Amino acid sequence: MESLSPHNILVMLLALGLLLATARVLGELARSLRQPAVLGELMAGILLGPTVLGTLFPEVNLFLFPVTGANAIALDTIATIAIILFLMVAGIEVDLSTLWRQGKTGLTIGAASLLIPFAAAFTTAWFIPETMGRGSGSPPVLFALFLAIGISISALPIIAKTLMDMDLYRSDLGMVVISAAIFNDLAGWIIFAIILSMMGEGCQTMPIGLTIGLTLTFTLLILTIGRQAIHTVLPFVQAYTRWPGGELSFAIILALLGAALCEWIGIHAMFGAFLVGAALGDSAHLRERTRFTIDHFVSYIFAPIFFASIGLKVNFISHFDLQLVLLVTALAVICKVGSAFFGARWGGMRPRESLAAGFSMVSVGAMGIIVGLLALEAGIIEEKLFVALVIMAMGTSMISGPMIRITLQYKQHLRLADLLTSRFFISDLKAHSPEDVIREMVQPACEHLGLDTDHTAARVWERESTLRTGIGNGIAIPHARLHELKKPVIIAGISRQGIDFDAPDDQRARILFLILTPVSEPAIQLTIVSEIAGLFRHEPMLQKALQTTSFTDFLALMRTESPDPAH
Amino acid sequence: MESLSPHNILVMLLALGLLLATARVLGELARSLRQPAVLGELMAGILLGPTVLGTLFPEVNLFLFPVTGANAIALDTIATIAIILFLMVAGIEVDLSTLWRQGKTGLTIGAASLLIPFAAAFTTAWFIPETMGRGSGSPPVLFALFLAIGISISALPIIAKTLMDMDLYRSDLGMVVISAAIFNDLAGWIIFAIILSMMGEGCQTMPIGLTIGLTLTFTLLILTIGRQAIHTVLPFVQAYTRWPGGELSFAIILALLGAALCEWIGIHAMFGAFLVGAALGDSAHLRERTRFTIDHFVSYIFAPIFFASIGLKVNFISHFDLQLVLLVTALAVICKVGSAFFGARWGGMRPRESLAAGFSMVSVGAMGIIVGLLALEAGIIEEKLFVALVIMAMGTSMISGPMIRITLQYKQHLRLADLLTSRFFISDLKAHSPEDVIREMVQPACEHLGLDTDHTAARVWERESTLRTGIGNGIAIPHARLHELKKPVIIAGISRQGIDFDAPDDQRARILFLILTPVSEPAIQLTIVSEIAGLFRHEPMLQKALQTTSFTDFLALMRTESPDPAH
Repeated sequence: MESLSPHNILVMLLALGLLLATARVLGELARSLRQPAVLGELMAGILLGPTVLGTLFPEVNLFLFPVTGANAIALDTIATIAIILFLMVAGIEVDLSTLWRQGKTGLTIGAASLLIPFAAAFTTAWFIPETMGRGSGSPPVLFALFLAIGISISALPIIAKTLMDMDLYRSDLGMVVISAAIFNDLAGWIIFAIILSMMGEGCQTMPIGLTIGLTLTFTLLILTIGRQAIHTVLPFVQAYTRWPGGELSFAIILALLGAALCEWIGIHAMFGAFLVGAALGDSAHLRERTRFTIDHFVSYIFAPIFFASIGLKVNFISHFDLQLVLLVTALAVICKVGSAFFGARWGGMRPRESLAAGFSMVSVGAMGIIVGLLALEAGIIEEKLFVALVIMAMGTSMISGPMIRITLQYKQHLRLADLLTSRFFISDLKAHSPEDVIREMVQPACEHLGLDTDHTAARVWERESTLRTGIGNGIAIPHARLHELKKPVIIAGISRQGIDFDAPDDQRARILFLILTPVSEPAIQLTIVSEIAGLFRHEPMLQKALQTTSFTDFLALMRTESPDPAH
Repeated sequence: MESLSPHNILVMLLALGLLLATARVLGELARSLRQPAVLGELMAGILLGPTVLGTLFPEVNLFLFPVTGANAIALDTIATIAIILFLMVAGIEVDLSTLWRQGKTGLTIGAASLLIPFAAAFTTAWFIPETMGRGSGSPPVLFALFLAIGISISALPIIAKTLMDMDLYRSDLGMVVISAAIFNDLAGWIIFAIILSMMGEGCQTMPIGLTIGLTLTFTLLILTIGRQAIHTVLPFVQAYTRWPGGELSFAIILALLGAALCEWIGIHAMFGAFLVGAALGDSAHLRERTRFTIDHFVSYIFAPIFFASIGLKVNFISHFDLQLVLLVTALAVICKVGSAFFGARWGGMRPRESLAAGFSMVSVGAMGIIVGLLALEAGIIEEKLFVALVIMAMGTSMISGPMIRITLQYKQHLRLADLLTSRFFISDLKAHSPEDVIREMVQPACEHLGLDTDHTAARVWERESTLRTGIGNGIAIPHARLHELKKPVIIAGISRQGIDFDAPDDQRARILFLILTPVSEPAIQLTIVSEIAGLFRHEPMLQKALQTTSFTDFLALMRTESPDPAH
């Protein structure tokens, strides 16, 4: 059996390891700048691919990522599996019941944000195909359709994450936007699948009408009978196989076989994985644990490898065409924001919310990149248009969050872990009384922020005297509101001997969080206090916290024990 | 860039989906027969490979698993990634501190069970190489070394799971055996890595002394400095990246790069993944959640694909050589059981425990198969020896559990979910009083088991009258011990209106478990009761159970909410 040589294995592992490491580091960096992780992951491929590494050290680039031979096949295999699993997860996030529940407004926005950009992009591509970067020899209709779908499709995962980051996901606005995005996603993929089948992608050569019919029938079957069958079979899988392995395997097997079926029908494999994901995610029987295991492995291992591998495909500098980038981006931004805005207004939303809905829907993200990639590989578009599409997809995702914040005048909701800093952490408090420990804790913060220590300590003590802040379980949260502050400050400290903060359970306070908040933001103190109370609800947490000796250990504990912010 | 064609993608997805589905179904079947899952997974490959499918429908076999071209490379890529991640997980299970803590006896057994079979197999292979199936042209020393390590290595994961299944893992015997298996695994892999380097596997051609030196140095470095570095860095990863993605990616990236480094040194990549796993698993900072995510994805997705792919390699019927199979198996069983037995006796253990230790260590399992595969691919052994090694590896794993049970006269510890059956499940109890409901519940069981209903109900009621069995949270567990019973019986029922079982929290019982146990087994009732109490400790569990309408839903809930039995 033909197999990888030791040299192939070495190159594959090294390439994969470096690709994943770079993608994850840059992805984390993007997240910390409040940008989608996919932006950093793509940059990793641009760094390690022909654009940067290939220009500076072409031989290293060719050693790691040869363009022919077993290693090219190996990398493509992993990227293919990765994108199929990524689309399965994207499908799981499609909550069909949300779509029905939100009703008219969501559908109006979804349809408008799909059809208007589609029509605009199609027209542009039809009249100026050369300017837009049509692949030589590709049929004009197919090219125009591809560009149209590439610009009009929305990135549901990025939209959902953007809304979650701002705590808007469960708001009225959030639910309408999500149902619009689900509609856009679902309808967009069906249209995309039909376009794919028209270019003879896939193994079968069938009449176009038959393929369209098959696509729609297959979609309908999976989302009705298939969905019901999965819902019925899942309890059997749970009851008669080892938990949690049976359910996990069941989901992955379905995605692989659904993908194979779609590839056979003549539409792309990833559409099958997406539909299977949608059917799976819709079942109330699918356990959270299985969702998480798949989601984590895909989001943090497979997806970064896939998006980094995109960056390897072309040279993003030599194929950069400023005019085309601006044209494509302007087309996408104007059409998508405009269409969603008018859709929202039509559906009865107020102007400000409608604009926020528009900026929510603007994100083309990963989905647009995938469309572009398939078109590039099929020779339908030129490299310069691929580069422009990728930049547009990323650019629209980058502006989405900030523009919603500006539109809604939104202030970031800060979490405990975001406010902790090594500068305001005292791993061994010396003081023995509440009054002394408050002074000990505010001192470094006051020095750093230029506040008056006596005054600040007095304000905290004043609050403390009216109602003691020992909340039990060994925790105390002394606090005060200060006019002088611009943003909240938390000083964390550990007292080995414990200090009597008059807690209801009579336990001495060993972990202290001293919270100073601006008077202008009265709500923030409550959210931080409730987060602390939740974290230390169970006894073992106190013991673990007492065992930490450095700020890093302390912060690591707060982060890894807090409820998963992504869900 | 060279990539997979649509046809390649179709074949790859179909092949992967079918391979995984078959492997998992047969793996579950093996588990339900109390055999290692790897046995069923391997059978899946034998079914879909040249042995069965290839004989019956050669064209289907060739379509799914072509031996040359892009699909052969794609499958090998996935199998390679799979085995590397599998060895990483195997490494994580190696708990170095257990090794040191158990001290002398464990090391004695470990060393004896490695060296004595090694010497015996080496001698045999040296004197009758042709009978044993030496590959034509392979150097006799190398052949003998390979066979020796293939027979003497032990399957730590299977040994650990066998002991866990019998609740022996935390016993004195269990800890000694596990530390012996850890030693055997670690030393065995180091020797194996050195043998691999001797055959010029890997990319570098170095003098043999240098490679041995490098292997030992590298092992030592990873297990000392590397281990410490990982332990130090993990809290930073947790504190400054998104949880849980950062830690997950960190672990996988390290495994990939460690594997690449080992491949470059000239020993096999999987050794690097194994060492990285050992170093990672040793850190107390590695969170349970990350262990589980990796373990589940690898155990239930990657490992089944890998072991099934082994079955695709050769025709197990046409290369079956009965004499060789018996010879290899006898050699392994006698040498391994004997050496571990004498090692245990030498270490001061009693005869019965020593024999149990011998049967624990006999399992060659997955590790022997991996050794055989590498030797086959390098042309060192013939197909008939590979087949014999695989059968021996499986056979030793199959006898291990039953022989320990016989030696220790052990009775299987039954869990709640194993005792529930649809025959003894009543989804809507009619009775209103405790006495009536007991009668309603015992009736079907008594009819089926040929017991006297009046007598049985009276015995349960008698017990109930002395102390009521409503344990609170809506649960009651009436029970009795019966002379007539051979094994425990549980009748589960749901009462929609609730029945007053005099619970301490005054809640009516809605979920009832009526437990009948043999008088000969007094302990079992307590373990079942405590499992039920644990399951229903939290309020939501009762609500979920009340929503179930079928036995399957009820069983699915009991299984998926119970603490993971594998850990």
